[in-house]
This record gives sequence, C-alpha cells and structure tokens, in this order.
Amino acid sequence: MSPFTGSAPHTSAWRHLRLSVEDGVATVTLDRSDRLNALTFGAYADLRDLLAELSREKAVRALVLGGAGRGFCSGGDVDEIIGATLSMDTEQLLDFNRMTGQVVRAIRECPFPVIAAVHGIAAGAGAVLALAADFRVADPTARFAFLFTRVGLSGGDMGAAYLLPRVVGLGHATRLLMLGDQVRAQEAERIGLISELTEEGHASARAVELAHRLAEGPALAHAQTKALLGAELDMPLAASVELDAATQALLMHGPDYAEFHAAFTEKRPPRWRGPAE
Amino acid sequence: MSPFTGSAPHTSAWRHLRLSVEDGVATVTLDRSDRLNALTFGAYADLRDLLAELSREKAVRALVLGGAGRGFCSGGDVDEIIGATLSMDTEQLLDFNRMTGQVVRAIRECPFPVIAAVHGIAAGAGAVLALAADFRVADPTARFAFLFTRVGLSGGDMGAAYLLPRVVGLGHATRLLMLGDQVRAQEAERIGLISELTEEGHASARAVELAHRLAEGPALAHAQTKALLGAELDMPLAASVELDAATQALLMHGPDYAEFHAAFTEKRPPRWRGPAE
Amino acid sequence: MSPFTGSAPHTSAWRHLRLSVEDGVATVTLDRSDRLNALTFGAYADLRDLLAELSREKAVRALVLGGAGRGFCSGGDVDEIIGATLSMDTEQLLDFNRMTGQVVRAIRECPFPVIAAVHGIAAGAGAVLALAADFRVADPTARFAFLFTRVGLSGGDMGAAYLLPRVVGLGHATRLLMLGDQVRAQEAERIGLISELTEEGHASARAVELAHRLAEGPALAHAQTKALLGAELDMPLAASVELDAATQALLMHGPDYAEFHAAFTEKRPPRWRGPAE
Repeated sequence: MSPFTGSAPHTSAWRHLRLSVEDGVATVTLDRSDRLNALTFGAYADLRDLLAELSREKAVRALVLGGAGRGFCSGGDVDEIIGATLSMDTEQLLDFNRMTGQVVRAIRECPFPVIAAVHGIAAGAGAVLALAADFRVADPTARFAFLFTRVGLSGGDMGAAYLLPRVVGLGHATRLLMLGDQVRAQEAERIGLISELTEEGHASARAVELAHRLAEGPALAHAQTKALLGAELDMPLAASVELDAATQALLMHGPDYAEFHAAFTEKRPPRWRGPAE
Repeated sequence: MSPFTGSAPHTSAWRHLRLSVEDGVATVTLDRSDRLNALTFGAYADLRDLLAELSREKAVRALVLGGAGRGFCSGGDVDEIIGATLSMDTEQLLDFNRMTGQVVRAIRECPFPVIAAVHGIAAGAGAVLALAADFRVADPTARFAFLFTRVGLSGGDMGAAYLLPRVVGLGHATRLLMLGDQVRAQEAERIGLISELTEEGHASARAVELAHRLAEGPALAHAQTKALLGAELDMPLAASVELDAATQALLMHGPDYAEFHAAFTEKRPPRWRGPAE
Repeated sequence: MSPFTGSAPHTSAWRHLRLSVEDGVATVTLDRSDRLNALTFGAYADLRDLLAELSREKAVRALVLGGAGRGFCSGGDVDEIIGATLSMDTEQLLDFNRMTGQVVRAIRECPFPVIAAVHGIAAGAGAVLALAADFRVADPTARFAFLFTRVGLSGGDMGAAYLLPRVVGLGHATRLLMLGDQVRAQEAERIGLISELTEEGHASARAVELAHRLAEGPALAHAQTKALLGAELDMPLAASVELDAATQALLMHGPDYAEFHAAFTEKRPPRWRGPAE
C-alpha cells in the first residue's frame, strides 16, 4: 500500500466487471458474455475508477484484461450506449466521451504493465481497450475491428487516431480506422498489432503467465519503462535523452540495481524489491 | 455544393491533368504517358488548385489519383523542371518548392479520402504523391523510388522525411530516402507502404471500387477520421483524447449516427447522409 | 577539412576503440573482444568525442561501427560500469548517464550516415548504439537485447524509449524494452529493426561496401536527408514541408544538382562534389 493514499475509500465490490488479485497480478474480466461483453456506462466507469484505485494503492504490479465467453469485447452496447446517447445533450455527450477517453489514459498512465488477453472479437471500444494495453496476447481466433465509421462516428475514438499509427504505422492505421474492416490475428501479428500470438484457447493463460513474470520482476524499472515510452512519444530526442539520464541516475540509487549486481556477483537469481508491497 | 463558396470561379478545364467526377468520386489521372507522367510546373499547380477547389465546393466524397499508360508517375520532369530550376533565383526556387509541398498538404488536408492507384513506377515526386495519399492500392508491377539524393537533393522533399517514417518506421524510411533505391511491390507491402496489393492490372479498378465504397459511406465520419489521424500525429495523447471526445460528441448529434441506430433497429442497411451533396 | 575548425587539437590516438579512415569512410571498431566488446567509461567518452571531432573536421562522409570478435557489443561492462556506478553520488550518476545519451545524440546528429555492422550479440547499450545508427546491416547471427530491466533499470536508456517505437512501432518497442528478451535476426528484420540482412559473416564487408557507396555519393544531400529525418520526427507536417522547401531551394543552387543535370544530359555518371574535401 502506498503512503500516498488519502481519505478515498477502497471499493469493496466492482459491479460491472470481475476482479481478482493474486501475487501482485490483477485479472480484470469483462463478464457479460451473453452480449459479447458489450460495454455499458457502468463498465467504462468501473474501468476508469479501478485503474485509478489500483494506481493509487500500488496493490498490483501487472494487470490482465480479458473477456468472458466467446470473445474479448464487442464494444459499446448498441442499445444501452448508442440508443441512450441519441437523447443526450451536448454536455452529457462530452461527459460520456471524456469518460471513455479517461479509460484509455488510465490504461496508458497506470504504473504497471497492462496485458490484453484477446480471443474472438475485439470491436469498437473493445479494440481500443486492447490497443491501449502495453501487450496484446492473442490467439488465432482474435479479430480486431475499429468499426466507428460503421456507426457514423469518427475513427478517432478514445485516442485511437493517436495510438494506432504509432503501433502499426499511418498507412495501416488509416485503412483500419477509415474502413472499420475486421483484422484477423494473422494480419494483426504481421502489422505489429499483436505482441504475442498463442495457440488457440491459450491467450488468457499465456497473458496471466506473462503478468506473473512481470510482477516477479523489478516493478519500478517496469513502471519507469512504461512511463518513458508514453512520455517520449510526445517529446523530442534531446529532451528524451535527458529524461532517460535522470531516470537511470535515480534507479541506479535504488535497491534493485544493487541487487542485480550482488546476485550477478554471487551467481544467483536476483530478488527484486520494486515499489511498496 | 458548400454554402461557403465565395466569388472564386469554378475551373472549367484542367489543362495539366485529366479529371472526371461520378457519384461523388473524383478520378484524377496524370496523363502524359509518353513521359511516364513526369510532372510539370502546370501539373503541380493544377493538383494544388484542384484539391483546393474540390475541398471548397464539397463536390466529391473520395478521390482516386492514378497515372495513364505504363506507370503512375516518374516524378519531376528532368528537362522541364530540373533544367528550368537551374536558372532560377532563390525566391523562385522557394516558390517552386513551396508549391510542391502545398500539393502534399492539400492531399493530407482535403476533407475526403485520397486513394493512389499505383502501377509501374512511382518515382521522386510521384512516390511522395502516393505516400501522401490515405490509401495506396497497388499491383505487383508497382515500384516506389524516393530518388531525390540521386539528383543531388535532400530525401526530405515535399514532406517525405515527415511522412515516410510515420508510415514504414524510421529504419526503412532512412534507407529509402538516403539511397533512393527502388522498392518493389512485395517489399512495399511487407513494410506497410501499400494499403492493398491487387492482381496485376487491377490497381485502378480496385481503387475506384474502394472510392465508391467510401463515397457511399458516412462522409463526415470519414472526413473527421482523416482530419484526426493527421492532427494527432502532431499532438500529445491527452490532447488527442480530448479532441476525439469533442469530435464524437459533435457527430453523435449528427444525422448519420441516428441513421445507423434506426437502420440497426429496423434490420436494414443505413442510408448515410454526410455533408452537403 | 571544414573552415570552421578552431583551436581544439586533433586526437592522434583513440585508446578505447579502433579507428581507420579510407576514402571518406571511417571504420570504428569496438575492440575488446575478450569481453564481447563491453563498453567502459573510456569507450563511451571516445565515441562521444570522436563523433564530435569527425563532425567538426568534415573528414568523413560515412561511418561504419562494428565489433571485433564474436559479437557487436555486450553493453556496459558489469564490473567496470555497473560495479563502479553503485558507489557514485547523484551528480556523478547524472554525468555518466548524460554521457551515454550524448553518444546517441552524436550518432543521430553527425552530418554523415552511420552504419552499424552487427553480428552476434548487441545487448544493452550495444543495442542502443545499433538502434541510433542510420543503417543496421546484420547477419543471421545478430541478436538484439534491450536488457535494461534485467539489471533493475528503465528500458528508456540513452533515448531507446524515444527511438525504438519510431523504428519498430510502439507494440514491439514496449515488448522489447519491458522484457529485455533477445530478438534474433529474422524477427529483427520482420519488425524493421534491421536495414539489410546479409549472409553469415558478411555484415562487416557489406556495411563497408554501403559506406563507400554513400561516401562516393552527394554528401550534402545525404547529410541533409539525415538532418531532416531527425528534425521532422519532432515537427508538425506544415513546418516539415516548409523545411523541405527551404532545404531543396538551397541544394538546387549547389554544385551536385547542376552536376546531375549535366551528367544526365551528357549521358555519363555524375561526379559528386559534396562538402569540404
């Protein structure tokens, strides 16, 4: 637990998603399998608040995001979200769209790696949730579809027009966001959208395995790697080099760097400490 | 026709390229096949002015750019451009190079998708025109050559040093711009320079087909997708997420989003409206 | 020799690396093969100073960076660097990490192309040196490992969190920097980390061949191509187009552009001049 938690209470039950935490690994499951895990207002809000809470409490060192049933996530629910937004006024629409964007920012900015475990469909907002993760572990059934234009909206939803060109390049990103066509696992791997392609049915198990490997590693090193990757997308080279220098100088005074050297000298595996446990 | 057209007259004849418009699809053909469609001062100026006119008048919803004869475009004409620029003064040289850059900006900034249909050679400025397009539909005869250093100039011509690393990554972009070697269709597809590889001889037909699909779709959604992809290359994540939220809130009050929901509910295809027709 | 060299003396002997210059091509060899060319404080300092000196004197038109013996470079020496930094204070640690970053900036900013010739291991700082080069010519034995988190440090070292996403995309970069796993030549080629894959044992010869080709070409055109690729990663499109226009206008008044036209007209190969010889 971080010393910097204040008066905000801990949420005892997340009603719109399933959460378990074990050995520093949080597993978050979109669990509405009768609707292919279509997102509701409550699910977005819970994702936003859960990531903030986990970040504040330093309770986890890696997080797996997956979907129950036949697929990862079919995106915003047609009835509960598209239908409902049709009668919203300008302020409500801004509030809703800012909330979805906050989920993406929370995934990008939380101080632990996020691994999306993708099988079956990852569509619309579901595709962007996977895109925002640090790793996408997917099996051959995975299909990504940024289908926003199919519903009359901009392909730039929740930061997708920022993130996707930086992951797969501007050419592929334009095609995917403009047309909303499905991208199957094989193509997704070829263009860099998948971090690791597993055997069928193994995405979730492999994502959890990777999360445990990360959670057992040097947590502060991982957190800073993620923070710098995010920050330096928006920074020039000279400033990035300076940020790297300051970060490494900081970490070279930390316990994990000394532990690596001791372990190396003693020919044993290191025992990583990392941040507040 | 947009309500925001003013006194500027409509151009009745484009002398340096061939134009046809049908069902919202503009087809622009570089038509100087005896010189492999080498660009002249007039062709650059016409491309710049045509794109401005089409953008102002909202007359088209998608544009195909292709070349007549054996290839797409061999670049600036050695006699009419390289020869002529040798006797220009500084101001004239700046004027010329700004004009070519304005063509690229016009392609990137016009409010409809641009599809380059590439067969045979796309060299020098021809390669950059294709690079600036939103889609590159190419057949196996396509060859790209950013051959600026071969004539003693910088590989950064018309925005190529900005665009190419964002399409194929910095490693490939450095190799292509520094050496000016030909990139054949197979490699171009592998590194993400081609959006769709067709059978031989089918690039143009397939590009027109894609243009019609886009023109029949939700035009404002496509225009905003393109605008956001362009803008967010130059923006940080937090601002991009805010721009996406404002854009979606706007489009959620538009006719196409409501039409999607009505069509979905009535189990029929949507009838997209989009901008001024 | 540039007219803009001042009082700073020419270094007659580089103690921490091997240097030869022939026909405008500098070959720099990390030469500590009993330690897989592990970098020492002296090697970093020599790389920084050598690149500054070569840039100032305009003595070379292309540079090859390679490693003697069984591999390219195993990174910072565990004893001489990791051990030594453990007893440094904050100011010394900043100084050290700034120096390593200065080497990367020197590679990116020197006015000639840098070609890394990679065989065997390129690990840690060795991987970043190769990443900072303009070209990575590698043979099938090449393995890249950004193993900073393995020693408890941030994957963002020496600009790696800036450069790697721009070379291979954010997805692959996150995986490589966060996990520190080895990337073998075949995968490195697939994701765009290798510029040219050679036959086994031919990386060095092929890199030298490429360097001579570049050195025989138009040096100012190459220097500006490199400068614009670097600058435009950090610039918006409109400004990049303006920079390209000014650069081309400048080069169109230079001797190489006129020479190309003369050679083309006379049907002979051009005799490039380039900068101060």
